[in-house]
Amino acid sequence: MDREHIMIARAAPTAPALVLASKSAARRRMLRDAGVPAISDSAGIDEDEIKAAMRAEGASASEVAESLAELKARRISSRHPGALVLGADQMLALDDVWLDKPRSRDEAAQHLAMLSGRSHGLIVSAVIVQDGTRIWHHSDRAELKMRPLSETFIAAYLDAMGDGVLETVGGYRLEGLGAQLFTRVMGDYFTVLGLPLLPLLDFLRNHEVVMT
Amino acid sequence: MDREHIMIARAAPTAPALVLASKSAARRRMLRDAGVPAISDSAGIDEDEIKAAMRAEGASASEVAESLAELKARRISSRHPGALVLGADQMLALDDVWLDKPRSRDEAAQHLAMLSGRSHGLIVSAVIVQDGTRIWHHSDRAELKMRPLSETFIAAYLDAMGDGVLETVGGYRLEGLGAQLFTRVMGDYFTVLGLPLLPLLDFLRNHEVVMT
Repeated sequence: MDREHIMIARAAPTAPALVLASKSAARRRMLRDAGVPAISDSAGIDEDEIKAAMRAEGASASEVAESLAELKARRISSRHPGALVLGADQMLALDDVWLDKPRSRDEAAQHLAMLSGRSHGLIVSAVIVQDGTRIWHHSDRAELKMRPLSETFIAAYLDAMGDGVLETVGGYRLEGLGAQLFTRVMGDYFTVLGLPLLPLLDFLRNHEVVMT
Repeated sequence: MDREHIMIARAAPTAPALVLASKSAARRRMLRDAGVPAISDSAGIDEDEIKAAMRAEGASASEVAESLAELKARRISSRHPGALVLGADQMLALDDVWLDKPRSRDEAAQHLAMLSGRSHGLIVSAVIVQDGTRIWHHSDRAELKMRPLSETFIAAYLDAMGDGVLETVGGYRLEGLGAQLFTRVMGDYFTVLGLPLLPLLDFLRNHEVVMT
């Protein structure tokens, strides 16, 4: 792991900077692990209000994810002239119910009980904004089948996860203990983690942010 | 990440021990990250000789992976009475060419040049042996499409990877810099990492090694 964290040099010294418009530690880690040079900056947006308003208008989970991703990027774009500003969002759809990150252990337990024994979708959207103009977008969806969870398991799982359970929609990370929740994962792994990494890398190669 | 590494207690105190019959740090890490209690023990087998012999007999990559996985588990089973001994193997198939772990930087460069711009398969097989009897088996295959790589990129990639490039077939880890090599990954992520984790967890729940 150690040496891999040394970044592959940019192809072009004149390439634009990449700014991750997200507070997500998981997305920062994904970019770092893939050797992508990026800085982080973010401005708060009221996600709940936007989701509620779009839902009232009949928007799909995918449309909401895309709008939130774009808004996160636009909100800080003017602070980074010339930079590629990356906004991203992930939605969890259990049929027509959307689950946000749990705000407490009790809510995480409720969410897991709802997801238990059923399939849900994880929708991810990423948008690049440069100087206020949207220049790239990619969305994807993965389907995850959760096994039936006992109350005893949920309690032990929440004990082991601690506050980590509040950091992700659904209260799980597939690359950690979350693996114990699922019988099947269909779709792209990076989509499950919260960023469509391979299409993003392709875009970044075209803009000489990473080597070709 | 920290608290997640605290393992979820075994469902049954009388459950058999799980022994990983592999030197692979990646597989150890996968089990640890998923909260699976396991010890490691392994005995050397001459993989090259077995592969060559089976190839001469017309065996498929999947058959070879399964045989090697079983052999690794059998080799140490008698040292661990009653334990569930897990053997695993991964093969890389580029059409009818099988690539082993590269033995040097030069060989890694050759392998990457061969894989560049083409699709290859990663076949994984896992076998559980208990007291000399094979009691479980699972195989899976993923397909990975590599983008065309420049010589300059391969050199920079190998510089960044260092000796890590010798640890895996193909010389990449998808969860690290390896993401920069691919345009598409089709199949289960854990299969790419080298262990069919979700089916294995299902088996381990049935044997009370992890909680249900």
